[in-house]
Amino acid sequence: MSKKLTKRSEDYSKWYNELVVKADLAENSGVRGCMVIKPYGFAIWEKMQAELDRMFKETGHENAYFPLFIPKSYLSKEASHVAGFAKECAVVTHYRLKNAEDGSGIIVDPDAKLEEELIVRPTSETIIWDTYRKWIQSYRDLPLLINQWANVVRWEMRTRLFLRTAEFLWQEGHTAHATEQEALDEAEQMMNVYADFAENHMAMPVIKGVKTESERFAGALETYCIEALMQDGKALQAGTSHFLGQNFAKAFDVKFATKEGGKEYVWATSWGVSTRLMGALVMTHSDDNGLVLPPKLAPIQVVIIPIYKGLEQLDVISERVKPLVAELRSKGISVKYDDRDTHKPGFKFNAYELKGVPVRLAIGQRDMDNGTYELARRDTLEKMTIPMDEVVAKIEFLMVDIQNNIYRKAADYRKEHITLVDTYAEFKEVLEEKGGFISAHWDGTIETEDRIKEETKATIRCIPIDVETEKGVCMISGKPSEKRVLFAKAY
Amino acid sequence: MSKKLTKRSEDYSKWYNELVVKADLAENSGVRGCMVIKPYGFAIWEKMQAELDRMFKETGHENAYFPLFIPKSYLSKEASHVAGFAKECAVVTHYRLKNAEDGSGIIVDPDAKLEEELIVRPTSETIIWDTYRKWIQSYRDLPLLINQWANVVRWEMRTRLFLRTAEFLWQEGHTAHATEQEALDEAEQMMNVYADFAENHMAMPVIKGVKTESERFAGALETYCIEALMQDGKALQAGTSHFLGQNFAKAFDVKFATKEGGKEYVWATSWGVSTRLMGALVMTHSDDNGLVLPPKLAPIQVVIIPIYKGLEQLDVISERVKPLVAELRSKGISVKYDDRDTHKPGFKFNAYELKGVPVRLAIGQRDMDNGTYELARRDTLEKMTIPMDEVVAKIEFLMVDIQNNIYRKAADYRKEHITLVDTYAEFKEVLEEKGGFISAHWDGTIETEDRIKEETKATIRCIPIDVETEKGVCMISGKPSEKRVLFAKAY
Repeated sequence: MSKKLTKRSEDYSKWYNELVVKADLAENSGVRGCMVIKPYGFAIWEKMQAELDRMFKETGHENAYFPLFIPKSYLSKEASHVAGFAKECAVVTHYRLKNAEDGSGIIVDPDAKLEEELIVRPTSETIIWDTYRKWIQSYRDLPLLINQWANVVRWEMRTRLFLRTAEFLWQEGHTAHATEQEALDEAEQMMNVYADFAENHMAMPVIKGVKTESERFAGALETYCIEALMQDGKALQAGTSHFLGQNFAKAFDVKFATKEGGKEYVWATSWGVSTRLMGALVMTHSDDNGLVLPPKLAPIQVVIIPIYKGLEQLDVISERVKPLVAELRSKGISVKYDDRDTHKPGFKFNAYELKGVPVRLAIGQRDMDNGTYELARRDTLEKMTIPMDEVVAKIEFLMVDIQNNIYRKAADYRKEHITLVDTYAEFKEVLEEKGGFISAHWDGTIETEDRIKEETKATIRCIPIDVETEKGVCMISGKPSEKRVLFAKAY
Repeated sequence: MSKKLTKRSEDYSKWYNELVVKADLAENSGVRGCMVIKPYGFAIWEKMQAELDRMFKETGHENAYFPLFIPKSYLSKEASHVAGFAKECAVVTHYRLKNAEDGSGIIVDPDAKLEEELIVRPTSETIIWDTYRKWIQSYRDLPLLINQWANVVRWEMRTRLFLRTAEFLWQEGHTAHATEQEALDEAEQMMNVYADFAENHMAMPVIKGVKTESERFAGALETYCIEALMQDGKALQAGTSHFLGQNFAKAFDVKFATKEGGKEYVWATSWGVSTRLMGALVMTHSDDNGLVLPPKLAPIQVVIIPIYKGLEQLDVISERVKPLVAELRSKGISVKYDDRDTHKPGFKFNAYELKGVPVRLAIGQRDMDNGTYELARRDTLEKMTIPMDEVVAKIEFLMVDIQNNIYRKAADYRKEHITLVDTYAEFKEVLEEKGGFISAHWDGTIETEDRIKEETKATIRCIPIDVETEKGVCMISGKPSEKRVLFAKAY
């Protein structure tokens, strides 16, 4: 472990970048904008995937896999969709390399040009709806509830590990329905699944809402979203679920025979979360000492570190620790006993603190004599001495308590950082000096939204769902408004 | 379900293509050579993945994720590697589309040309070893045992669902070691893991061996493999594990500080299995009625079909079935109770037979009166009447018995189809009339191997590991040989 982390208060952005690398989550690769997800980071992502996958299956979805490549003509079939993705896509034009005739090395073979260029999928609506045309004939084939775990590519110019990368991993659900209402319900259901996952597994409070027209997914009629707040007062969109109307059904001619004998276009949704959630997880809970992980997503929930002089003493400690490891594992708690002789206890303490392991136990000669463990919890940095016969119960308690505590902490922070304002002057002041979400009245026009964005860099994160209507006037135009919306600067 | 499957005896290849589509495993997409893996097919693949992933982790490997794209210069760094893959790779040359100025549609933006072309990974040795240079400094960083689940692209000209597709899903293990022996042991260990998986989960007997020089992976010093035999007498390579020597360490300059204070190049392995295993699974066990799945990989292990007149009778049957479903599920057996009113029992019987569900239960009024179920096992097509209080035990027995029976059947077929020959005339006769593996002496030269391939289309599938040395003479050149090798026509 080289020198200390930059402090959040000094440079939040630098703190994040350093932490992601030092905690072995991810790093930049030799390919512009593409990251390597390291084993420790990937283990967290696998835990996220497993839980989300379970939730998707419980709500009736099945997994499938569609091609990585999308013919250019497919992408072009839905006008607003191609407009949204054309500017940042990786294009495959050739299918062979060869040796240059002048011996200068390997070159693209000009004779192996594709008839039609292929786009590396930035999202899969078009290739999937081209397939659904074959799968959907009748109302009996509906609803079609499918999810795909995949990599996608969007050629972003400015990239940051997990938050914005040219290639990222995600899941994309694509469903087809007989009625508009059923599709709307599905889109809303999946927003709720995402919110449930964010709050109960990531311990990250989120606000549920819908996007304004200008922030909607390219091709959607409504975009539901969950928005989280990071410790620097910036918002982060953590998941979106789109009601696509009949746009893709029309573009790909997907009709079904109704019960009544007619023919109608199918209604669609799509929804996704990505490795961006890893960035959200890091920025929601971690501190100047390193990661803080919720127990439900921590690859290692408990680490045990022996403190010893000489290998004989280590053997005695290891014998004492063995049954504890077995008992914790039998309770489904993941434990690492780090008896490496190549590193000192202090080094190990720092390393697991940096990696956000929720509970650390240390045991040395004095603990052996007293029949205790020294326990440290990562979230509060509290240390305590626990009798050996109470340590399992204590750990079981902490698995729940740490999960709840970091959620509460994040929720408290967010509560303090939602500010109601009624004037634009106040809006700008709060945005600069405090950050966070700003709840304000807006007249519903793109003009006002654009002006605010241009002048302050704040965007409307969402029109919240769980908020009462309230008569007011737009802080810019003075026109009437029915509901406050949430503004913030965002990742 | 449209008309019947083609029979294997009529046209094995057509039978396979039809079955994969009709059983809802996969289909061709609108993108040349790329398949869509349908939910039922993907559910089988997920079961394979889960088991393999468990086996990899049990042998100390961790998952990670590396970029989809490989800069052309990386691919070129290992000479034999690029020679092996350059002829069939998808090349990304641009990163943006735009509207054509003449209004003719969306075109590739000529101003968005990449400085260096990117290759869609055909395999990831080069990008991974470029990363390992940063990860490996000292013997303390070794062994590095990493696996990746990913999609890869090889621009095959003639493609077939699962067996040979332009894009496929796979896992690729990439490990780094301090010594040659340790890397060799790892490569052999992973071949054994694959063989264990193939035999004990896919119920597919395999022969373990090493490839001849001309059949080796591009960049490998030794390729271990498992070879299976399909019902048409053709062999299928089901998994490979490569000892890469120091080739990639040298190409990417990956050295480590030894315990003794020196600097040495790292030793490497890589190993992979792909969605090709799905094709192997289908072709090993299935019959003219459809799929036959091993219980360990069947997404639905037991289907229960009610036979009724009117919804009232259905309700009574459903009540009777409910506790059975619950009990089977509690034992970890996946059950589908298909009470759809839109399809007749006969239709359902055919559909689940086609999909290879290992056990089918039917229950009608007579069964209700007698306290029995009608049970049909998919592998033997046997039908039997089982008292209700014995049905759970019977099913538990069948989950094991069907798994064993289909393995035995495949093993018997293979035993009958390994023929020892000593002359080239006999070789050609057996190859044409019987097929299967032919065990023959070979002089170890590429010339002989090439000649046989050219004249008969048979290749050396492997030099088997579990076979005794035996003095003999090459059936072509008459030169001495120490061991018989296995020839076959192959997928």
